Amino acid sequence: MSDVPVQPQPKKPAGRTILASTIAKIYTSEIADKVKSLGYAPKIVGLLANGDPAALMYANWTSKTCNELGFDYELVHCDKQQLENKLIKANQDNSINGIMVYFPVFGDNQDQYLQQLISPEKDVEGLNYLYYKNLYHNIRFLDPPTNRKKSILPCTPLAIVKILEYLGIYNKILPYGNRLYGKKIMVVNRSEIVGRPLAALLANDGATVYSVDINNIQQFTRGDDLSEQKHKVIDLDSATASIDNLAPTCDVIITGVPSDHYKFDSQLVTNGTTIVNFSSARNFNDDIKLKAALYVPSIGKVTIAMLLRNLLRLIENNQI
Amino acid sequence: MSDVPVQPQPKKPAGRTILASTIAKIYTSEIADKVKSLGYAPKIVGLLANGDPAALMYANWTSKTCNELGFDYELVHCDKQQLENKLIKANQDNSINGIMVYFPVFGDNQDQYLQQLISPEKDVEGLNYLYYKNLYHNIRFLDPPTNRKKSILPCTPLAIVKILEYLGIYNKILPYGNRLYGKKIMVVNRSEIVGRPLAALLANDGATVYSVDINNIQQFTRGDDLSEQKHKVIDLDSATASIDNLAPTCDVIITGVPSDHYKFDSQLVTNGTTIVNFSSARNFNDDIKLKAALYVPSIGKVTIAMLLRNLLRLIENNQI
Repeated sequence: MSDVPVQPQPKKPAGRTILASTIAKIYTSEIADKVKSLGYAPKIVGLLANGDPAALMYANWTSKTCNELGFDYELVHCDKQQLENKLIKANQDNSINGIMVYFPVFGDNQDQYLQQLISPEKDVEGLNYLYYKNLYHNIRFLDPPTNRKKSILPCTPLAIVKILEYLGIYNKILPYGNRLYGKKIMVVNRSEIVGRPLAALLANDGATVYSVDINNIQQFTRGDDLSEQKHKVIDLDSATASIDNLAPTCDVIITGVPSDHYKFDSQLVTNGTTIVNFSSARNFNDDIKLKAALYVPSIGKVTIAMLLRNLLRLIENNQI
Repeated sequence: MSDVPVQPQPKKPAGRTILASTIAKIYTSEIADKVKSLGYAPKIVGLLANGDPAALMYANWTSKTCNELGFDYELVHCDKQQLENKLIKANQDNSINGIMVYFPVFGDNQDQYLQQLISPEKDVEGLNYLYYKNLYHNIRFLDPPTNRKKSILPCTPLAIVKILEYLGIYNKILPYGNRLYGKKIMVVNRSEIVGRPLAALLANDGATVYSVDINNIQQFTRGDDLSEQKHKVIDLDSATASIDNLAPTCDVIITGVPSDHYKFDSQLVTNGTTIVNFSSARNFNDDIKLKAALYVPSIGKVTIAMLLRNLLRLIENNQI
């Protein structure tokens, strides 16, 4: 017996935190090999017109990864009003293989116009509505019925799918295309860029998805009418469906709320849930580690890997 | 001399109010003749998914005009979640020549996705970014250098240009493409659908345009570098440029504020100014008639005429 009081032991998490870099590695070596076999450095141009230090940081990070893997990355700074013409010139420049624009630029619908101005053949982020349309309708190829050119997926939703595959959420015993069957997944974000296409992707793979935004909760499922090749969306009744009662039933919770002030309430998370945060802000406090079976606190490095994977696919498509 | 006090006479407007129907007539007879020469009734489908009574009224009005001029108009009511598939089917249906969707549907960026899903070949409203891009860059044809297929202009900005032509604001003595040279025009609305493209169109024709939105005032001019085929935009300094000091200098004031509460201050309007309101709300009080040389209180009928003119142009383009 001693007089020294027993120090309260910090609780030990039951689960694991998985870093994006760990998952990205699986893809980066494959990407570097493919670039080597091309025999030249594919060129990607980033257009930065918003003066946002966070975008500049992301651009520098992309640049570093590009250089490591054998790509040629050029960052072009320009004025907002110059952006459209710079973009059109990059579309026409045969030495450029991929283009990305750091949004938001104007912060209104002009950004959608600019986004769609990126040539689909150089759209490494997969933002063209052509690609979103294929995603929503489960169409995998650009050139049916030949089916030699694979469609591109928007890189952030794609990164999240790859992360869920890595984490074993996709069950490989189930048939391909239905490997999320029986899973309940909450996605807190319904942006057109990530949240809504992600909910559709997961529903198309068999999950029941609760898509949360500031207005309501929608349920995405594969639906019964498979002939339409489109997931089914219903607005849930706010009197009975809430984050409070749905979150505890979920196998996976994915957040993407772009605010430092927002925190998902860990009390609503059942022990053993898988947690992925794709916001650049941390949407969970550290206590989530005591609840989560697997916790991926950020995904940026996987997203960049997907972007470069898309670029290689675009190059392949353009050769056909 | 009499004891009866002199009644104050109501002031008599010095200018004229011009109704849209008067201007539309010039185009409708031309349209009806062209339809007759086609030998069949072109079919236009309106997709209504927002349950908005104002949209239904506009649809009924379009239907009536279509029938009068020899078109076949079909209104399709559907659920928001069905709209995407209805739209894709209409794109694929060879019996349909033109498609319009009554926006807003979701009221967020999903509407841009749906808007861009309308096949450019059937996009009677001219909303595809392909057409906006041509507008911004003063590109008149879809198939350079052959130049047989004319590009489509978005129907509301086009209607306003046609109205300004009718009102004599375009000066025919000046060379084509510069017929607004020397004119100052204020446009109160900078939406991507109407206000911004309209400002660009007018600047491309030689005007100095003050484009007003809730955040700031921008000046659109043709600019000096004609090689870029693009108007020049600068943000005006809010310390010196305001509606109060710019409006009195303008030859034309065009408003499109979608609110019953908004009224443009008639005190800021110099006598003899031309006034056009394209909002469905009345953005001017009746006292504007004492100031305006020409006042066009609404433009809907001209817009519908332009829509049908676009449809005929699409049919011509598709025959080439």
